Amino acid sequence: MDARKFQAAQKRAQDVLSRAGIVLTPAEASQIEVADLGLNRLAEEGLELVTYINNDRYCAKELVLFPGQTCPEHRHPPVDGNPGKQETFRCRSGEVWLYVEGEPAPSIRAQVPEASRPYYTVFHEIALRPGEQYTIPPNTLHWFQAGPEGAVVSEFSSTSTDGNDIFTNPNISRAPVIEN
Amino acid sequence: MDARKFQAAQKRAQDVLSRAGIVLTPAEASQIEVADLGLNRLAEEGLELVTYINNDRYCAKELVLFPGQTCPEHRHPPVDGNPGKQETFRCRSGEVWLYVEGEPAPSIRAQVPEASRPYYTVFHEIALRPGEQYTIPPNTLHWFQAGPEGAVVSEFSSTSTDGNDIFTNPNISRAPVIEN
Repeated sequence: MDARKFQAAQKRAQDVLSRAGIVLTPAEASQIEVADLGLNRLAEEGLELVTYINNDRYCAKELVLFPGQTCPEHRHPPVDGNPGKQETFRCRSGEVWLYVEGEPAPSIRAQVPEASRPYYTVFHEIALRPGEQYTIPPNTLHWFQAGPEGAVVSEFSSTSTDGNDIFTNPNISRAPVIEN
Repeated sequence: MDARKFQAAQKRAQDVLSRAGIVLTPAEASQIEVADLGLNRLAEEGLELVTYINNDRYCAKELVLFPGQTCPEHRHPPVDGNPGKQETFRCRSGEVWLYVEGEPAPSIRAQVPEASRPYYTVFHEIALRPGEQYTIPPNTLHWFQAGPEGAVVSEFSSTSTDGNDIFTNPNISRAPVIEN
């Protein structure tokens, strides 16, 4: 991702958070994470994040998805004897469609990103509107996409160790890449 | 607390959350916890809570404090080999003054509740405005009071086991008491 696109996405994410009533300090705003996951098509696949706290016991983040933006399918495997990260997603604004392992929906509301179609394999659908939430068990495949208004999702979880995430798409690298 | 006071406090807490941009489901709104801690002076000492999730790994709540309302001094001791609850307080609206163990402030901004003065013993002050946060280590005495606008505070933490909390005031019981 080039630096200009990165900064534009940061600014846009900050605006979305602000419209959802979520206040960031200037330092936090300048550190909003823009994750294109190395795919270089942020509008379709990626997300924006603010990590409030991540310690050895718990973690809390805000996730921002632009309209139609998709966080690709992944799971949080067991690490060092821990059962893998468990996450509670709480929708704060907009709408988000979450897909997990289980009975697939007959037809899903999200549009699977065309370029990565083979890497989306679970289709049990949970639609979340503001105030609604869902807890994803450890080591469970999941992906999610914002509806046409975009979405802000609070994530409450056990400790986050992003480097251990396993994405279905082998081309994904979790570390953000920013080129000048 | 009589049922009318309880319901009025619930309604008021819901309004405060709504003004802070925080959406609850109708079921959540009807279950807002009003904790007068058995002291029967809610306006001075107590708080209102919504627990989003509390499992064996993490917990997330919204805390509502009315203007000048104080959550009395307490600590979260070690339980069953765990080091005690660790909490991150993030101010979402209003202002909150948090007091923990450590170097006491020369003069504090909060007003110690007169009826319970002997039960407030730590005076290291942290003032939190929207977007600001502070993490309280396990087993550390703390209390907090909202400023003149009241406050909404998001609490991210390890597992919550309220029954184990140790309040400095021996008259406090954690279980809510509602009389009809």
